Amino acid sequence: MIRFECDYGEGAHPRILERLAATNMEQTAGYGEDPHCEAARGYIRELCRMPDADVHFLVGGTQANLTVIAAALRPHQGVIAAESGHINVHETGAIEATGHKVITVPGENGKITAGEVRGVCDSHWRDPTHEHIAQPAMVYISNPSEIGTIYTLAELEEISKVCRKCGLPLFMDGARLGYGLACELCDYTLADIAALCDVFYIGGTKVGALFGEAVVITDAALKRDFRYIMKQRGAMLAKGRLLGIQFEALFEDGLYFEISRHATELAMKLRAACTAKGYPFLVDSMTNQQFPILPNSLIERLKVKFAFSLWQPTDAAHTAVRFCTSWATKEEHLDELIAEL
Amino acid sequence: MIRFECDYGEGAHPRILERLAATNMEQTAGYGEDPHCEAARGYIRELCRMPDADVHFLVGGTQANLTVIAAALRPHQGVIAAESGHINVHETGAIEATGHKVITVPGENGKITAGEVRGVCDSHWRDPTHEHIAQPAMVYISNPSEIGTIYTLAELEEISKVCRKCGLPLFMDGARLGYGLACELCDYTLADIAALCDVFYIGGTKVGALFGEAVVITDAALKRDFRYIMKQRGAMLAKGRLLGIQFEALFEDGLYFEISRHATELAMKLRAACTAKGYPFLVDSMTNQQFPILPNSLIERLKVKFAFSLWQPTDAAHTAVRFCTSWATKEEHLDELIAEL
Amino acid sequence: MIRFECDYGEGAHPRILERLAATNMEQTAGYGEDPHCEAARGYIRELCRMPDADVHFLVGGTQANLTVIAAALRPHQGVIAAESGHINVHETGAIEATGHKVITVPGENGKITAGEVRGVCDSHWRDPTHEHIAQPAMVYISNPSEIGTIYTLAELEEISKVCRKCGLPLFMDGARLGYGLACELCDYTLADIAALCDVFYIGGTKVGALFGEAVVITDAALKRDFRYIMKQRGAMLAKGRLLGIQFEALFEDGLYFEISRHATELAMKLRAACTAKGYPFLVDSMTNQQFPILPNSLIERLKVKFAFSLWQPTDAAHTAVRFCTSWATKEEHLDELIAEL
Amino acid sequence: MIRFECDYGEGAHPRILERLAATNMEQTAGYGEDPHCEAARGYIRELCRMPDADVHFLVGGTQANLTVIAAALRPHQGVIAAESGHINVHETGAIEATGHKVITVPGENGKITAGEVRGVCDSHWRDPTHEHIAQPAMVYISNPSEIGTIYTLAELEEISKVCRKCGLPLFMDGARLGYGLACELCDYTLADIAALCDVFYIGGTKVGALFGEAVVITDAALKRDFRYIMKQRGAMLAKGRLLGIQFEALFEDGLYFEISRHATELAMKLRAACTAKGYPFLVDSMTNQQFPILPNSLIERLKVKFAFSLWQPTDAAHTAVRFCTSWATKEEHLDELIAEL
Repeated sequence: MIRFECDYGEGAHPRILERLAATNMEQTAGYGEDPHCEAARGYIRELCRMPDADVHFLVGGTQANLTVIAAALRPHQGVIAAESGHINVHETGAIEATGHKVITVPGENGKITAGEVRGVCDSHWRDPTHEHIAQPAMVYISNPSEIGTIYTLAELEEISKVCRKCGLPLFMDGARLGYGLACELCDYTLADIAALCDVFYIGGTKVGALFGEAVVITDAALKRDFRYIMKQRGAMLAKGRLLGIQFEALFEDGLYFEISRHATELAMKLRAACTAKGYPFLVDSMTNQQFPILPNSLIERLKVKFAFSLWQPTDAAHTAVRFCTSWATKEEHLDELIAEL
Repeated sequence: MIRFECDYGEGAHPRILERLAATNMEQTAGYGEDPHCEAARGYIRELCRMPDADVHFLVGGTQANLTVIAAALRPHQGVIAAESGHINVHETGAIEATGHKVITVPGENGKITAGEVRGVCDSHWRDPTHEHIAQPAMVYISNPSEIGTIYTLAELEEISKVCRKCGLPLFMDGARLGYGLACELCDYTLADIAALCDVFYIGGTKVGALFGEAVVITDAALKRDFRYIMKQRGAMLAKGRLLGIQFEALFEDGLYFEISRHATELAMKLRAACTAKGYPFLVDSMTNQQFPILPNSLIERLKVKFAFSLWQPTDAAHTAVRFCTSWATKEEHLDELIAEL
Repeated sequence: MIRFECDYGEGAHPRILERLAATNMEQTAGYGEDPHCEAARGYIRELCRMPDADVHFLVGGTQANLTVIAAALRPHQGVIAAESGHINVHETGAIEATGHKVITVPGENGKITAGEVRGVCDSHWRDPTHEHIAQPAMVYISNPSEIGTIYTLAELEEISKVCRKCGLPLFMDGARLGYGLACELCDYTLADIAALCDVFYIGGTKVGALFGEAVVITDAALKRDFRYIMKQRGAMLAKGRLLGIQFEALFEDGLYFEISRHATELAMKLRAACTAKGYPFLVDSMTNQQFPILPNSLIERLKVKFAFSLWQPTDAAHTAVRFCTSWATKEEHLDELIAEL
Repeated sequence: MIRFECDYGEGAHPRILERLAATNMEQTAGYGEDPHCEAARGYIRELCRMPDADVHFLVGGTQANLTVIAAALRPHQGVIAAESGHINVHETGAIEATGHKVITVPGENGKITAGEVRGVCDSHWRDPTHEHIAQPAMVYISNPSEIGTIYTLAELEEISKVCRKCGLPLFMDGARLGYGLACELCDYTLADIAALCDVFYIGGTKVGALFGEAVVITDAALKRDFRYIMKQRGAMLAKGRLLGIQFEALFEDGLYFEISRHATELAMKLRAACTAKGYPFLVDSMTNQQFPILPNSLIERLKVKFAFSLWQPTDAAHTAVRFCTSWATKEEHLDELIAEL
C-alpha cells in the first residue's frame, strides 16, 4: 500500500533523527529551557525579523490552538473562524471545552475574508443587545487552509488591518505553513506573517518533524504568562529539548523550506497529470493537498494499491478525493500513481 | 555539570532511538491506530493480565491526568488527592481548568490512606447540605509518590476496597511506576495494579522513553469515548505510532523493568552512602528519588559540580535536597557524587 | 410610552403578589425544600401525568438552559440546536462556557426537523474520523420558538422518535410555553410534552411570574444529582419557596393557562388587524409574538407612542418589527396600537 | 416550630413587598436598565462615596461569587480564600467549575490575615517552578465571615495594602454585610470598604430582601464587560427592576442599616443570656450568628420547639450549635428561646 492519505504517515526527516541521536545523552534542563530550544528560537526570530517575539514549542496542532485561544480570551469572548476551520470541525470541540464559542463565517475556498471579519464586528457592536451575544475577540485563520488554498499577501494585509482596527488579535494556524510558503502563489515570507499576525505557528508535525509546532507570539498582551497556560493544558513537554532539537534542524540551514518545496513540486506534478487527463478539481489548491474529481470506477481500482481520502461525492459516478504529498513522498511512488490515473 | 536534579534530563534509551530510526519511513495510519500501538497494547495487556483493558498512549503526565479526570467526572464532582499530589501542586490548576475541585487530604508520607478516603466519603454523605459541596467521585494516588514512597500491596488493597464500596474509581498516576515496581519494598506487579485500580498509567517519560504515558483503563464506564476526550484535550498524537514504538521497545522483552532496576539500585547505593556518612533523610524513600538532609556548607560545595534540587530547609544550617537517579544515570557519576559527600 | 417590546416588562400577576404577601412571614426551609415548592411540584406532576418526574424551580431561562445542558453532557458532547436557537444566539456563549459545542442546523421557521436531527447523527457516526468531532448528545428545541412558531404534535412525536432511536435526550426550552399551549394551532398538552421530552421547562418569567422556570425531568439519568449542579451554577435560590409560591399560584387552578390565552387572543387580534390593513408577516406566528412588515414611515410614527423591536429590514422602505403581547397587556393599549396602524 | 436555623427563612421586609406591589404594573426595560436600578445604584454610590463605581444587581451569593471571580481571572490564575471560605466549602465547586483553583490558607477565626496573603504571593513568585503552580490573582474574604466574625478596619487596611502591593484585586463577599456593619465592633462604613476593596457585594438575600446582592466594582479593569459575563452565567435577571426596587427600598432611607441593627441587637441579647448561664462559645461572634456550646440534653429539649443548626460536637456531652437572628426575628421568639436555655 502506497499512502497519500495524509502528510503525517512517516516519522521524521532523517536529519532530525540523527540530531536526536547525537544529542541523546546530553543532560539538559526540562520544559523548554535548554540551549536547543534557545537556539531554535533564535533561528525563528531571525527568519521572522522579530527579535522580541516569544517562541514556544508545543507538541501538536489541537494543543497549540486551544492553548493560544484560551490564553487570549476572556470568558465571554469568542474566536471568529471559517465554518471549515479546523477548530470548528475536527478538534472535538476543544475550543468550546476551554469555554469559548467559535463564531463561524462561511469563508471562500476555506479562507476568511476581511469583509467577513468586519461584518461580524460591526453587527456585534451595532446590536443593542450585544451583551447577550458572545463577543468576537480573536480571528483564527488556517494557512494553508484545510483544503490547500493559501492567503495572498494582499488578503493577509487586509485582514490584519481590519483586525487591528477592531482590536482583534489575528491568529494563524500554520500546521502546513511550510507547504504554503513553498507554493508558487505565495508572495510573502515568515517575516511578513510575523508582521501581520499577533500569534501564529509554524507546523512541524506535517512538515518533517516527528511532532511539534512553533508558536510565535508578537503581541505583548498575549505573551504574558503563556507558559503557565501551556503547563495547565498539558502542552509543556518535560523533555522540551526534543522540540528544540527538531526545530533547530529544520531552521538552521533551510531544511524546512527545502522539504516543503519537495512536497509542493510533487503535488504540482500530480496536478498537471490530472489536468492532462481531464480530471477537474474540487478546489484549486497549489499546495501539498490535491482534490481531483475522479470516476468512481477509477477510484475502486486505485484503492487496491494506494491509500487516499474520499472527500465528497460530486455526482452519482464521481467523487472528489484527496491526495497529500509531504516531505517524505517518494517521486517513484507518485509516478506509479500518475501511471494508474 | 553532572545532573541529578530530575529523571528527565536525557533523551531516550538507545534501543528506543534505534527502533524509531528503523521504523522511520514506514507509512502507517495516524492517531494511535497503527500496528506498533496495537503490539504495545498487547504486551501491556498481557503484563496486566487484562485482555479487555483499553490502553491509550498519551504524551505526558499532566495531559494524562487531566484527560482521565475530565473523562471520569460529572461537573459537580471532585477528585480526592493528597495535599502533596502532583495534580494539586504542580500542574497549574489543570484539573480545576477542566471544571473540577481537587479535594485534598493530608496523606502520610505522600500517600493517601484508606481511612482518609472513607472519611471524605462518610462526611460528604452524612452532611445534610451535601448538595452544596463538591461530591467526591474519584481517588487519585501517585505511586511512587512525589517524594519517592510507594504503596504496599496491603495499602492498595485496602484503598481499592474502600473505593469500590464508595463507588469511587481509583486512578493511579504511575509517572515513575517503573521505579516503584523495581523497588525492593514492592510486593506486587502490574497485574495486581490492574486488578485494584480502575485506571492507571505506566510512565515512559521518566523511565526510558523520549516521552509517553500508557493509560490502562479496566473500568467499563471509563472506557467509553475516551479517545474523543483525548482528541479534545490535545492529547491524541498525530503520529501516534511514535508512542507505540517506544512502548513496544520498553515492554516486548522487559527493558522497562531492567532500566528501572538500574535506577533504583543506584539510588540505594546513594542511600547507603548517605547513611554511612550519618546524613539523615527527610523521607524514607526506596525508589529513585532520595532526600538526604545535608549541611549547607556541603551543599554549596556540591553545587559547583552537580545539579540537584533544594527541597526544603530543615534548620538554619541544614537543607533537605533531592537527588534523582534514572535509567540514564551513569554509575561513575554517582560514584563521583558519593566521593564528594 | 406603551410597551410591546417584550413579554417581561411588568412585574407579576396580582394573584402572585398577593400570595407572596400572604406567605411572607412564614418560616420555611430554604433551597426549594419547603411545602410551597412541594405543592407546586404536585400540581405540575399531575398536569404532566408524570408522578415520578423531578421538578426543579430555577430563576431564569439562560440559567435553566446551561444547568440542564451541563448536567446532561460529558465533555466531548454537544447539543443540537437551530441556528436561531436562544442558546446559540442570545446567551453570550453560556453553553460553551460550560464546555460544550452547540451543533447547529438551519431549522425551518425557527424549528428543528426530525430529519435534521437524524442527519447530524448519521453523518457523525458514519464519519470514520468521528472521534475528532464533537459528539451530538442532546437536542434542544424552543417551543414556541424565538420567532413565535410552535411545533405540532406530529412534529414533536417524530423528533422524539428520532431522539430515542439515536439515544439523544430531548430538551424543550419552554420559556414561552404557556403562549404556545394557548395557541389555536396547539394540539397537545403538558402531558404530551412530558411523554415526548426527557427534560423541559415551563416558563414563568414571561408568563405571569416575577421570575421562574419549572424544569421537569422525566429521564432517570438526568435526574441524578441535578440539585448539585443547580447549586454549582448559582441556580439554587436560597429562598426557594418564592418560586414554589409563584408556581403554586399559576398551576393550582389554571391561572397559567388563562393568562396565556389572554395574551394569545390579543396577539390574534393584532394579527387580524395587520392582515386587514394588508401588512404581510415575516413569519407566520400564532403565539404572542407578531412580526408584521411595516413601512418605515409608519414605524417612525408608531415609535413616538409605542415601544417595540425592529427585527430586520426587508427592503429599503420596509422593516419587520416585533410586537409582544403578554399576560399583562391591556386590551385598550392594543386597540390604540391597532388604531395607529 | 420557631426557626433560628438561618437568616433566610422568611420572605422580605414588608416595605419591600409594598414597593413591589406599588410598581407592579409599571412597564420598564429589562436586564437592569430601568429607573429603579438606576436609583438604587445612585444610593449605593453615594453611601460608598464612589460616584464612578459600577453597581450590578445579582440574584444570589454563589452566582455573585462565581461571576465576579470568572470575570477577574485568566485561566491559570486562582483566588486566595480561607479554608472556611464559602467559595471553598459550600458552593459545590462553583469556582472550579469556572476553571479556577481556590488557593486556601488556614485563616484565623474565619478571617484571612495580610500575612497569609503575602505568604502565598511570596512563596509563589520565589518558587523557580512557579509556572507549574496556579498563580494567585485575587483575594476573597467574607465579611462577616461564615462564623460571624468581622474584620477590623486595621485588618482590612493591611490586607488591602498587601493586595495592592502584590497586584491582587481584593473581593469582599458581603452576603451578611449589614449585620457586620451593625455590629458594635465595626469601626468602618461602606465608604471605607469601597475604598479598600476592588469589588464587593452588599447582601440583600439575608438582610431583608426577597433576594439580591449588589455588586460594587471600583476597579477599572474589573468593570470591563461585566454585564456580558453576568448574562453568560445566567446572572442577569430579565426583570432586573425587581432587584433595583428592593435595593431602592433598602437604601433610600437607611432601612438596610436599621433592620441589620435589629438582628444584631437580638443576637447580643442571646449572647448575654448564654454567657449569664455559663455556656461558652465556639467562636466569639458579635454579629447575627451565635455559636454557644450546649449540653446535648438541653439540645434535645430545645429541638422540640426550635429549629437551629448543630455545628460540631465539642466533647461527648456537648455540641456547638448555631442560632441565627435576622431582620425578621421577633423579640418574643428570642425571649422564648432564652427562657428555655
